[in-house]
Amino acid sequence: MSLKNSIRTQAQLSSVKVIKQRVIGSEAQAPEEDYLAIEDPLEIVLAYQRHGGTVEKKLIVTMRTPGHDDELIHGFLYCEGIIQCASDITEITYLGPKLSAAPTRARVELRPELDVSEKSSERNFAVHSSCGVCGTTDIGHLSIPKALRIADDTQIDANWIHELPARMHHEQATFRKTGGLHASAIFSPLGELLASREDIGRHNALDKAIGANLIAQFCPSHGQVLCVSGRMSYEILQKALIARIPIIAGVGAPSSLAVALANDFNITLIGFVRDGSYNIYSCPERIRTA
Amino acid sequence: MSLKNSIRTQAQLSSVKVIKQRVIGSEAQAPEEDYLAIEDPLEIVLAYQRHGGTVEKKLIVTMRTPGHDDELIHGFLYCEGIIQCASDITEITYLGPKLSAAPTRARVELRPELDVSEKSSERNFAVHSSCGVCGTTDIGHLSIPKALRIADDTQIDANWIHELPARMHHEQATFRKTGGLHASAIFSPLGELLASREDIGRHNALDKAIGANLIAQFCPSHGQVLCVSGRMSYEILQKALIARIPIIAGVGAPSSLAVALANDFNITLIGFVRDGSYNIYSCPERIRTA
Repeated sequence: MSLKNSIRTQAQLSSVKVIKQRVIGSEAQAPEEDYLAIEDPLEIVLAYQRHGGTVEKKLIVTMRTPGHDDELIHGFLYCEGIIQCASDITEITYLGPKLSAAPTRARVELRPELDVSEKSSERNFAVHSSCGVCGTTDIGHLSIPKALRIADDTQIDANWIHELPARMHHEQATFRKTGGLHASAIFSPLGELLASREDIGRHNALDKAIGANLIAQFCPSHGQVLCVSGRMSYEILQKALIARIPIIAGVGAPSSLAVALANDFNITLIGFVRDGSYNIYSCPERIRTA
Repeated sequence: MSLKNSIRTQAQLSSVKVIKQRVIGSEAQAPEEDYLAIEDPLEIVLAYQRHGGTVEKKLIVTMRTPGHDDELIHGFLYCEGIIQCASDITEITYLGPKLSAAPTRARVELRPELDVSEKSSERNFAVHSSCGVCGTTDIGHLSIPKALRIADDTQIDANWIHELPARMHHEQATFRKTGGLHASAIFSPLGELLASREDIGRHNALDKAIGANLIAQFCPSHGQVLCVSGRMSYEILQKALIARIPIIAGVGAPSSLAVALANDFNITLIGFVRDGSYNIYSCPERIRTA
């Protein structure tokens, strides 16, 4: 893969210092410094060949925490079905108001042979569940091809699941500083941590982790386990499904649609991983219990 | 206001029963019943007059928890700048695969005099921060007119803030059942609870609360206080700003952009309301401390 970033920003900062006023009971304390997670827009523009010329198309504006933007772009385009491997992207050029700040625009050049004309004009499955206000197409797009059903007979030890949130959080430097970020981590079937990423949006955190996997050529891969910090909704399952991840474990609750999707596509869905226990909602045969 | 719902579904259910398998340590327990928050798509279609005829336009597919769909639609269209008051909607017609389930499509008829042609074709501010994958237009849309700055000299007692999350959660029947929902509540300057709503998406919960306020003609109103269950990002601030709410208190952390917006538009932003303390990030003069 060739990733020549024409402009690489100096400050891929994920947190910023602010002054806050703490109130205890009704008493105002002296103003003090604190850190907030950065939320910043990034416009993703696709550049691809069409009828012998280069076409540029604004794909999306995403609000993300700067850092790992390459991975975010790779993961997002992969989950949207626009790219199938990291080498489908030939170059990412970042632009911003100034070099010292995070970029606000990424121009993503795609491999000339790639057919993106239609794919890039509409979302993959069109609806993203952690967000109530996205997806601009009709409800028919919700149906996912049955062929995506996961055939994967990986089994992991039940005990092993309990450690995943702590191992994921161990990597979350900005969360510890700000309390304001979501995380996603992907583990190999042998329990190696492949990627752990954080972001203000939980889908972004997952896109970054999947993008990291894709760049490292671990994706799609047999038997991986995804751990997420928050709740598990349709969109999280949809992205995991495209990345062919058979086991998902989350600290929070799953939605009804997440469980329905997990059942239909043979994904093991685990929720409420905390305090030494968890709930399995689908395909329990992948978890070796006592 | 005239709201004649041609088809009102019987089952506005917000949770569903499932069978789960709990694992404690490595021991599988006997399968047991549990409840999950429902996540279900709703397609919102606008119907409005144009050149003497009725035009139908698909606005959005949103993943929401069924229940209070009228309020969700009112709040969403209001926050998008498509309607200014509840009477701008003359009729909502719900359709679904069967009467016993939540509707999957809502046809929203707008007042004939309403000019929606352009407004309905693009998002109000185009970017929604809790979601990494929405907003399909360019980054220029992020700028909000300075005229929206809130001039509101409401003051509330510092002590009063601590109670808000508990008062909000008191109304969250489905959260208590499922652990899987976000909530938003709006309080009057005198401390009355005006609306408390829950949803799998935090922006939906806020749209529902704002929609309830709009239908009850409490919106926009002077001196209201918004309480939210989760983190506070750009989008939450943006919706509160349009609803002219001067004080926002959240259980979670704010993002950098939320604090920037709060400062620019004179909103009092309060985070980490828990365990008898909280942090004020902007406009502390509205909070009467000891």
